[in-house]
Amino acid sequence: MPSPRAPGWQGSSSRDPGQPCGGDSPRSSSVINNYLDASEPVSLEARLSRMHFHDNQRKVDYVLAYHYRKRGAHLAQGSPGHSLAIISNGERGKEPHAGGPGDIELGPLDALEEERKEQREEFEHNLMEAGLELEKDLENKSQGSIFVRIHAPWQVLAREAEFLKIKVPIKKEMYEIKAGGSIAKKFSAVLQKLSSPLQPRVPEHSNNKMKNLSYPFSREKMYLYNIQEKDTFFDNATRSRIVHEILKRTVCSRANNMMGINSLIANNIYEAAYPLHDGEYDSPEDDMNDRKLLYQEWARYGVFYKFQPIDLIRKYFGEKIGLYFAWLGLYTSFLIPPSVIGVIVFLYGCATIEEDIPSREMCDQQNVFTMCPLCDKSCDYWNLNSACGTARASHLFDNTATVFFSIFMALWATMFLENWKRLQMRLGYFWDLTGIEEEEEHSRPEYETKVREKMLKESNKSAVQKLDTNTTGCDNEDDEDKLTWKDRFPGYLMNFASILFMIALTFSIVFGVIVYRITTAAALSLNKATRSNVRVTVTATAVIINLVVILILDEIYGAVAKWLTKIEVPKTEQTFEERLILKAFLLKFVNAYSPIFYVAFFKGRFVGRPGSYVYVFDGYRMEEASIATGVSCLAPQPSPILISSTACLHSFMPLLLRAHLVLMGPFLIFSLQCAPGGCLMELCIQLSIIMLGKQLIQNNIFEIGVPKLKKLFRKLKDETEAGETDSAHSKHPEQWDLDYSLEPYTGLTPEYMEMIIQFGFVTLFVASFPLAPLFALLNNVIEVRLDAKKFVTELRRPDAVRTKDIGIWFDILSGIGKFSVISNAFVIAITSDFIPRLVYQYSYSHNGTLHGFVNHTLSFFNVSQLKEGTQPENSQFDQEVQFCRFKDYREPPWAPNPYEFSKQYWLVLSARLAFVIIFQNLVMFLSVLVDWMIPDIPTDISDQIKKEKSLLVDFFLKEEHEKLKLMDEPALRSPGGGDRSRSRAASSAPSGQSQPGSVISSSSQHTNV
Amino acid sequence: MPSPRAPGWQGSSSRDPGQPCGGDSPRSSSVINNYLDASEPVSLEARLSRMHFHDNQRKVDYVLAYHYRKRGAHLAQGSPGHSLAIISNGERGKEPHAGGPGDIELGPLDALEEERKEQREEFEHNLMEAGLELEKDLENKSQGSIFVRIHAPWQVLAREAEFLKIKVPIKKEMYEIKAGGSIAKKFSAVLQKLSSPLQPRVPEHSNNKMKNLSYPFSREKMYLYNIQEKDTFFDNATRSRIVHEILKRTVCSRANNMMGINSLIANNIYEAAYPLHDGEYDSPEDDMNDRKLLYQEWARYGVFYKFQPIDLIRKYFGEKIGLYFAWLGLYTSFLIPPSVIGVIVFLYGCATIEEDIPSREMCDQQNVFTMCPLCDKSCDYWNLNSACGTARASHLFDNTATVFFSIFMALWATMFLENWKRLQMRLGYFWDLTGIEEEEEHSRPEYETKVREKMLKESNKSAVQKLDTNTTGCDNEDDEDKLTWKDRFPGYLMNFASILFMIALTFSIVFGVIVYRITTAAALSLNKATRSNVRVTVTATAVIINLVVILILDEIYGAVAKWLTKIEVPKTEQTFEERLILKAFLLKFVNAYSPIFYVAFFKGRFVGRPGSYVYVFDGYRMEEASIATGVSCLAPQPSPILISSTACLHSFMPLLLRAHLVLMGPFLIFSLQCAPGGCLMELCIQLSIIMLGKQLIQNNIFEIGVPKLKKLFRKLKDETEAGETDSAHSKHPEQWDLDYSLEPYTGLTPEYMEMIIQFGFVTLFVASFPLAPLFALLNNVIEVRLDAKKFVTELRRPDAVRTKDIGIWFDILSGIGKFSVISNAFVIAITSDFIPRLVYQYSYSHNGTLHGFVNHTLSFFNVSQLKEGTQPENSQFDQEVQFCRFKDYREPPWAPNPYEFSKQYWLVLSARLAFVIIFQNLVMFLSVLVDWMIPDIPTDISDQIKKEKSLLVDFFLKEEHEKLKLMDEPALRSPGGGDRSRSRAASSAPSGQSQPGSVISSSSQHTNV
Repeated sequence: MPSPRAPGWQGSSSRDPGQPCGGDSPRSSSVINNYLDASEPVSLEARLSRMHFHDNQRKVDYVLAYHYRKRGAHLAQGSPGHSLAIISNGERGKEPHAGGPGDIELGPLDALEEERKEQREEFEHNLMEAGLELEKDLENKSQGSIFVRIHAPWQVLAREAEFLKIKVPIKKEMYEIKAGGSIAKKFSAVLQKLSSPLQPRVPEHSNNKMKNLSYPFSREKMYLYNIQEKDTFFDNATRSRIVHEILKRTVCSRANNMMGINSLIANNIYEAAYPLHDGEYDSPEDDMNDRKLLYQEWARYGVFYKFQPIDLIRKYFGEKIGLYFAWLGLYTSFLIPPSVIGVIVFLYGCATIEEDIPSREMCDQQNVFTMCPLCDKSCDYWNLNSACGTARASHLFDNTATVFFSIFMALWATMFLENWKRLQMRLGYFWDLTGIEEEEEHSRPEYETKVREKMLKESNKSAVQKLDTNTTGCDNEDDEDKLTWKDRFPGYLMNFASILFMIALTFSIVFGVIVYRITTAAALSLNKATRSNVRVTVTATAVIINLVVILILDEIYGAVAKWLTKIEVPKTEQTFEERLILKAFLLKFVNAYSPIFYVAFFKGRFVGRPGSYVYVFDGYRMEEASIATGVSCLAPQPSPILISSTACLHSFMPLLLRAHLVLMGPFLIFSLQCAPGGCLMELCIQLSIIMLGKQLIQNNIFEIGVPKLKKLFRKLKDETEAGETDSAHSKHPEQWDLDYSLEPYTGLTPEYMEMIIQFGFVTLFVASFPLAPLFALLNNVIEVRLDAKKFVTELRRPDAVRTKDIGIWFDILSGIGKFSVISNAFVIAITSDFIPRLVYQYSYSHNGTLHGFVNHTLSFFNVSQLKEGTQPENSQFDQEVQFCRFKDYREPPWAPNPYEFSKQYWLVLSARLAFVIIFQNLVMFLSVLVDWMIPDIPTDISDQIKKEKSLLVDFFLKEEHEKLKLMDEPALRSPGGGDRSRSRAASSAPSGQSQPGSVISSSSQHTNV
Repeated sequence: MPSPRAPGWQGSSSRDPGQPCGGDSPRSSSVINNYLDASEPVSLEARLSRMHFHDNQRKVDYVLAYHYRKRGAHLAQGSPGHSLAIISNGERGKEPHAGGPGDIELGPLDALEEERKEQREEFEHNLMEAGLELEKDLENKSQGSIFVRIHAPWQVLAREAEFLKIKVPIKKEMYEIKAGGSIAKKFSAVLQKLSSPLQPRVPEHSNNKMKNLSYPFSREKMYLYNIQEKDTFFDNATRSRIVHEILKRTVCSRANNMMGINSLIANNIYEAAYPLHDGEYDSPEDDMNDRKLLYQEWARYGVFYKFQPIDLIRKYFGEKIGLYFAWLGLYTSFLIPPSVIGVIVFLYGCATIEEDIPSREMCDQQNVFTMCPLCDKSCDYWNLNSACGTARASHLFDNTATVFFSIFMALWATMFLENWKRLQMRLGYFWDLTGIEEEEEHSRPEYETKVREKMLKESNKSAVQKLDTNTTGCDNEDDEDKLTWKDRFPGYLMNFASILFMIALTFSIVFGVIVYRITTAAALSLNKATRSNVRVTVTATAVIINLVVILILDEIYGAVAKWLTKIEVPKTEQTFEERLILKAFLLKFVNAYSPIFYVAFFKGRFVGRPGSYVYVFDGYRMEEASIATGVSCLAPQPSPILISSTACLHSFMPLLLRAHLVLMGPFLIFSLQCAPGGCLMELCIQLSIIMLGKQLIQNNIFEIGVPKLKKLFRKLKDETEAGETDSAHSKHPEQWDLDYSLEPYTGLTPEYMEMIIQFGFVTLFVASFPLAPLFALLNNVIEVRLDAKKFVTELRRPDAVRTKDIGIWFDILSGIGKFSVISNAFVIAITSDFIPRLVYQYSYSHNGTLHGFVNHTLSFFNVSQLKEGTQPENSQFDQEVQFCRFKDYREPPWAPNPYEFSKQYWLVLSARLAFVIIFQNLVMFLSVLVDWMIPDIPTDISDQIKKEKSLLVDFFLKEEHEKLKLMDEPALRSPGGGDRSRSRAASSAPSGQSQPGSVISSSSQHTNV
């Protein structure tokens, strides 16, 4: 039953689709019908590639997929459950008024299906009216997937390219970009030679010193451009972008005036819309395509050492994804210097471990510091030198070099951001993004639905005649259909409340883990049999709980953020993305870092002092920062050298086997428990385990495992469904079939998010963990290829999106960079022992060395003043204890105001705070200086841009002169003659010749109803 | 002797100017000669206005002025000195090779003059070749000024407008910009009604809610625009901008290939180049022009209360100056809230003066604190309650409200910058600046000279053949003629050294003033007769010296910065400006603020303590912060109430009479010398006097007086010269004559600089001087009209420069904003008594009040430990003194470590530093929050921009459809037919018809040599 509108139409509609109200009635005479009849099958071998229409000439630029089910099929075939599964997740019964008469004898499913069919027909009709050419297969089975292939003919491409101001190269020969003086030239030549094995072997990649002059495409200036072959003048990504642009703005009046393909997909009218990949990436044949090239030179682990072929990535995936990989590449390469310096800082710690006076003093068996018990009753007094090993290990991370390293890292963050700005500018120049304006964005379907609901409600409230204009009127969309602050208020409130709740939840979980540690420790230490394993058990389980909680909450928060953003109903896709990112970032940031912040700044600071400890849930003392050595003194003590070398080894181990440390972590914590004299060590370990565990588990499980599982599940599902599809199809699948079976592309947010959180690990606490950049580097080398592989082999081709920058991520990055200055200042000032040592050295030490520092940091406590019932129950300590020592600056028991903070305390505190102020302002000033010293636009690029502009003016002036000359000479000829008409002929003639069935020739075939 | 090239040429050149090498030989047949013969004088009355050519039709868009002197005139007339004065400041003898043969019999002056004449001829020839039309008067006297009037005909305007992408309104009717909901609409209507008397009565100003759709001008889309009258389609500013653009890029090959009019002016080939004003601003007739309108509604003190007609300013002066006044207006109106709040804070201080416990305690005659003497030998012990009055006055500025005020001001600065960004965007939208790209800039003449010198030197070094290509070649400019880092190094080094030197100079002057105070005080106090006047004399003279030094150095530094930037030889005008601004700002900032910084943070902090004072130039004690009361106790003590009310009065006085305070300042200082218990008062006074004095003197003397003097001088000079010019000319001067007599426009830098320094006064130390915003506001209300008057009446019309933003000034402003957070944090923490009081109240006070605070801040000193020879010589103190008190936190003499800093000291220091950290980070966070909450682009504008874009696409799509229809219907016609050729005809036809003597018709007149 052929449609009365289109000769090639193969649908089952028997009813007139009716006049859409979109003002096409006056123009209906010019409706163009480009449907192709796909009924005569061409043999697959005869076709050039599987990416063309069946006429083998027109390239498929875009594919719309939908699932059809013929009328009454579910009744006849008796598989209602199955077809239901596909269709019924739409908004069934949502638009009851839209259903025309004659639906009565159909089931509700059929009615919905018919409705959709008509909407599709109208939409496709509108697409054809916009000049696109469509092809689709017969709906010859009772149900199945239909692919509507879309081809954009030249005149559509040209028109849209002009609207979109797409810059294309003009005829003028390429010119070389200058590379400074001769020395710089030589140097860069040497560099190029050296790096040549690292360069991917991609044709376009070598000439990144050459640049075509380009100018926004204009049909009136066709003579400017070097148009040899119209089919290939615009590359595939641009073509699909143009089609996508048309798809986005085409209105379907039947479907409530929904604008664009995204709304239709959201309403299940279509199932998917995607551009085609360029071919197969693993085809054994010789034919090369960009996808295969990308796979071979970029998306394999085997080429991890090579630079990325950014230009090719951009050409294939568009600017947005190109910028992501460029950013990731820059970030990864920027991680190399801090990795090296981090290792040097760590090695410096290893090397100077023997020269560290405080830890030597602590280990000195002659110094006997009797420490106060670490818990009530069951803990005994202990000797400080039992913590010797841990003190030495602590020196690995807590030394003078760390301070300079963290200054370096703060500047590094600024440098990185500056260089990214420059790279972005450079890429923007080479990719002709200079001067592009923000593209107009259409409303999200959810927003439109909400607005429609609101309008309906309002019109119901008022008059009936208003209802009529609202439901049928197409033009009053712009008048009052905006969500006001009042409409949004519940959403905002919900958002605010939920985020507060989530953050509170995170904090309470952190607190819960603390309570768990305290209570378990107390419970276990009551039992003599378990007492020796208390610390191991408690710490190991606590860290694992922390890690698991972080991983689980991370996923939950991702979903919550999405849900919250949906509630907010942002207007455009871009605001949706930005708000989602902000929320998700906030939640994930708090989640990932709150345990670390606790360890860094709060742990052990609210312990109280012997005699007046702080208790939670009366009876449980707050955990001390120095929870070490309670066991150490019972367990056989490893030699200091052994400890320090084990620490070094353990820290290097992840280099060899990333999985190892996650398992080793708890034990490492046990052996490296932070010692009196600095809690930086514990922070370092907490950080390393969370960072490594997170990266490892997220990379391996979520990024590799889950997609594999999904694919498997999909395959299984397809196989059960595949019974009906013909076997020839599955043997020689078309490209659109292949692409359809891939995962849809869902945006770059998760990729960026992962990296940003990692960036936080690298910068925020770098003072406590100098090896973080190294681990990040190793992770990222894998990450780049992992992502690349995903994009090339596992996802449908994303729409090429033109964008100038990485958007809100840059702000987040620079925010983290700024925050890292403060956080590092506090880590050095408060968590590390750097300042107390400095103060001791310059204010108290008799000879300017650190001798006596340990003694100086320990206060005295009169044992007789211990509260009743908290004394050690059965002390095995060998000598009688009168005073025990604890780590704090307090007045001794014999002072007039015992146990008050001493003068030293305030002196050290002043020094710490002064350090924070100096560090913060100095580093911020240096950052501003770096920011200011490095121009945002590289000099060569800005020179080039200026030069290009003057070249363009010259070029036009020359054209001008020639035109004038032509006008002068043959004054007899018509005023419109000359080269202009020639160029126009070139632009308009082929549209009438080379493309059969297009605009002019096909309009006469149209039979209007 | 008419030139052989141009029929209308009236010059005296007898030689063939020769072929310039700029590639015009192949095109010389198309050289257009638009010189007009001005020999037939039209009667002045018959002419429409004095802004047209003598044919009364063509508007003068630009004027080039030069001074000519006929060959041998200086010999014949015997006035060589005079003509020398005009001509000889060029680079005489600089290009000896450029002089052709036949110069031998001429004097060197004549040769130079001839040379210049030829260069002018070539330049004017090139201008005509570019399509411009020129008119000039006869050089009929032996010497005089010649004005070359330039008119841009329509086809030149159209061509250049297309190159410059000037946006012009398209035909579509204007559409209204939505104003939110109905409530907002009503509200804005009420607001508009209320503010209507404040609105300037300017025609275009009322419809700022309407906006034309605009699109870059394109000659191929002529049908889009609403071109009614070609002569007025582009307004005067745009016309002159277009001409200026051509002037900038026209090459004069004779003059060493110098590019553009600026180079020619720099080489004295022309004297001036300026667009014409629109008429006279004070003409008594009825004819209205924009200049007159601006004068009446904007540039008079009488309209100071009105808003500025920003759109008209922009229309008349161009975007750059428009933005300056928009900025100034926003800044001034933003000063209103802080002025009000500042006054409230001040009044709060006045009101609570009686409740301030510390000052009450100080005034209590029962509390006897015997203070240590303030200087060696000649000073006596003194009673603290003699400083009572000053303590009370100090409370006026140093109270809790100040803290909140300075938080408010930090946020205010952020708000101001955010709002400026928004206003800038809004203006950018209404002025069609969205999407404009940076314009290509030509090198500065100095840069080119330097490059030429370098090339000459290098070519001299190498081969002779290279020399040839360098001096005659025109095209290798782009190859190696760049100044490398090596060339610039001396300049940079010089810059660096000079700036360091200048800063050191400033510091040493500040130090010098300190030394002056110390020594004079010491010298005067030796003499009994002068002793009673010591403080008055010293302080008064010191502040006056400071002010004078600041004012003098300000001028010097301005000149030095200019000189240093010249040494640096920046390439473009823009970099020159930016570097000059940065340098000048740095120097002026240091100059203006270093005495204030000294008072705020250093004064009195390096005094030492009794018994071990710090001495400079052995013998002179460093001045104490609390230098007060040395006299006060000798002079009759005014009652506290009197003092405080006088202080209030004195602070309000400038409202009434701005000049008063400068004279009163020293005496005010005397009476308000900062008291023990906070040195904020002194800072406040220092600040107010420097700020007010600077504003007053700079405004009155430099901005009003100096130009007046200059004008007078010029007039006198002109009168002596005027003997030769004809009297008819001076009776009815042409507009170009009038404009020529005005001062040339030299840029906005001084205007911005003054405001920025003021912005610093308002924000940096607002914690110490809450009235600063008020004074700034009063100053600015005058400043706006002062600047306006200058631009409208005293300066030549500036070139209309298109710019999107205020450039580097924004960065400087935001830098000051950020710095102000830190500076205010330190002022509150360190200079004010806020923190010590807080600490006392919560840590030491027995009942939570401030009772006993004064006692707590004073340390004891055992008089017997005073160094030999420093005791008061003849103490008149009534009781025997054993311990004297001094303001510091030190251990008492009876402690185990006497005079060491006490625990309180460190506690207070910790609190101060903690406050700095909290304040800084809190305020910075709030600023970021404000920055983030306020979108940079106002929502309505961004909506509008998007809507405009979609309207444009719709518009084009409609055009497209119409075109297609036309192509479909008459298929017989040629494929290139339709409305396209019509539009082209419209664009090209008038150029051949309406403009006699232009392109086509005049080319045949040309007689080639």
